[in-house]
Amino acid sequence: MARIAVVAGDGIGPEVVAQARKVIDAVLPGVEATEYDLGAARWHRTGEVLPDSVLSELAGHDAILLGAVGDPTVPPGVLERGLLLKLRFAFDQYVNLRPSRLWPGTAGPLANVKPGEVDLVVVREGTEGLYAGAGGTLHRDTPAEVATEESLNTRHGVERVIRDAFARAGRREQRKVTLVHKTNVLTHAGSLWARAFEAVAAEHPDVTTEYQHVDAAAMFLVTQPQRYDVVVTDNLFGDILTDIAAAVTGGIGLAASGCINPDGRYPSMFEPVHGSAPDIAGKGVADPVAAVLSAALLLDQLGHPEAAARVTDAVATELASRAPGVPLNTAEVGDRLAGYAVA
Amino acid sequence: MARIAVVAGDGIGPEVVAQARKVIDAVLPGVEATEYDLGAARWHRTGEVLPDSVLSELAGHDAILLGAVGDPTVPPGVLERGLLLKLRFAFDQYVNLRPSRLWPGTAGPLANVKPGEVDLVVVREGTEGLYAGAGGTLHRDTPAEVATEESLNTRHGVERVIRDAFARAGRREQRKVTLVHKTNVLTHAGSLWARAFEAVAAEHPDVTTEYQHVDAAAMFLVTQPQRYDVVVTDNLFGDILTDIAAAVTGGIGLAASGCINPDGRYPSMFEPVHGSAPDIAGKGVADPVAAVLSAALLLDQLGHPEAAARVTDAVATELASRAPGVPLNTAEVGDRLAGYAVA
Ligand SMILES: CC(C)[C@H](C(=O)O)[C@@H](O)C(=O)O
Ligand SMILES: CC(C)[C@H](C(=O)O)[C@@H](O)C(=O)O
Repeated sequence: MARIAVVAGDGIGPEVVAQARKVIDAVLPGVEATEYDLGAARWHRTGEVLPDSVLSELAGHDAILLGAVGDPTVPPGVLERGLLLKLRFAFDQYVNLRPSRLWPGTAGPLANVKPGEVDLVVVREGTEGLYAGAGGTLHRDTPAEVATEESLNTRHGVERVIRDAFARAGRREQRKVTLVHKTNVLTHAGSLWARAFEAVAAEHPDVTTEYQHVDAAAMFLVTQPQRYDVVVTDNLFGDILTDIAAAVTGGIGLAASGCINPDGRYPSMFEPVHGSAPDIAGKGVADPVAAVLSAALLLDQLGHPEAAARVTDAVATELASRAPGVPLNTAEVGDRLAGYAVA
Repeated sequence: MARIAVVAGDGIGPEVVAQARKVIDAVLPGVEATEYDLGAARWHRTGEVLPDSVLSELAGHDAILLGAVGDPTVPPGVLERGLLLKLRFAFDQYVNLRPSRLWPGTAGPLANVKPGEVDLVVVREGTEGLYAGAGGTLHRDTPAEVATEESLNTRHGVERVIRDAFARAGRREQRKVTLVHKTNVLTHAGSLWARAFEAVAAEHPDVTTEYQHVDAAAMFLVTQPQRYDVVVTDNLFGDILTDIAAAVTGGIGLAASGCINPDGRYPSMFEPVHGSAPDIAGKGVADPVAAVLSAALLLDQLGHPEAAARVTDAVATELASRAPGVPLNTAEVGDRLAGYAVA
């Protein structure tokens, strides 16, 4: 039976993770879960972000379910670089998977886009690019200061994530992959991405392809999100584009994500895109849907696609039946979702 | 009298630039204009992108009015790096100014945002960051290939553009500046931007400030574009965010931009954000509003704020009186705008 590590984290993290576990237990009884205390609270208490011992314990699990880490009192970068990015890099989670759907029953911000019309997935590279941490500063706090950030891209890293995107597209109805980059300005990295994309595309004659500059893609995600199926892009572009995709499909409150190591050598990690939302923490009013959808991605990754589908269908049922304006109760939503999933 | 260089360029460039000149002539008679043939057509004909002789002639003008350059048959990077970016860098156009308004009479894509509610300007850094061209490739076309792109940021370059943003905010009603970066991941460049921002903010106690990560800003531009007044950000983030801002205010068809050298040592350049649109070129149906709004930015920069305001008001009149669905005629729109501007 699968063994998962649970990092509930800060703020609303524990509340929404509890519902995700409820739903997992309902569709796949017997999953063994171990809790790990990481995040802002632990850092405040002990000064520790991610001790090596915890990192190796996490490595022994089949997957990690994460709620949310962070709060406004932690300096920028501490938990991001020290925990989230550390895990993505240490566990070689090179596929950062971010599906966006405008669910029937929900309202997006776009006047001309109807529920059901948007169903896209961004395959964001997770281990390279500007996230490599290859930057430096000289002459700090003087008029001569210079600061650099370097985007590092390898054929190895680029090709494998593109390959994953094509494989996913091949399993979808529309079978289309859009490469997003900025080849007209970032000519070195852009050329590498474009050539790797072309090479992998040649192996997939059944998949339609297109290329867009990141600025154009940012625009089209707002004016025509329906046109996308699978989008593959680099780490930073993916960071930005997935927030736009989330915004046009009803906000990060509903958005799930997976940081996946497709090779299975390391555990993959699943988390809602939303943060710890300290303003509503502890009130039992946070929407657990994004956490539950992340659990569905986890189940799929662990080789239980039917269980995953039941969870996704349960979310569809829940969202389609919500009356507008009625406040929600986190635990009740979790109960309903667990119920729908096994009905 | 002002001397401007006109680069009409490719596709619809000449058509829309003709209207912009019509309007300039109406509000400021006697401007001397010299045409320069640059763009895809010249490159195809002669292989030349921007001869040094032309660069020095351009340097002798007070401003440059540009239509659009490019067409799909030119390899990516040739005109971008060789012409547009070359001019921005050679003429130290460090303020890339991109206003976005949701004009009364027009319809944006957002259901809950009403015309008149959005009026923001992005002050995008124009001479540094990932646009420096500091990249490299090793082991090209082998499995060991690595490609890099380096973002170069100086205190000099960052502080001067932030200073410009605060000065602009001080002349606006809301007086608010939002810094957008990614300080939690790009810790070196992010820290430089954040510290420079803090220092300049301290000199402007009358201006409200806020900071957002680029992914959050991309999202809020979709969910709440009303919240922004002046946004200051780096070159690449600005590229992406201005296309989102254009999208939520009715598309790049209406978006104007200025590449400004505020020191006045070099000519500033003004251009519509849209491209050469080869599909509709030569048909006389392109909307010249973005080119005309760019002309207004040009007039303002050359020290004619009343003339600029008359042009902007003319655009407001035009847009407010357009009947939906009626096809437009480029030259007729230009005539009307010139008429409104001197009425
Ligand atoms: C918290 C931050 C490091 C992270 C990122 O930039 O990847 C977040 O924005 C995300 O998208 O998961
Ligand atoms: C054409 C390209 C080089 C340019 C940029 O990236 O700056 C364009 O997208 C813009 O926004 O002006």
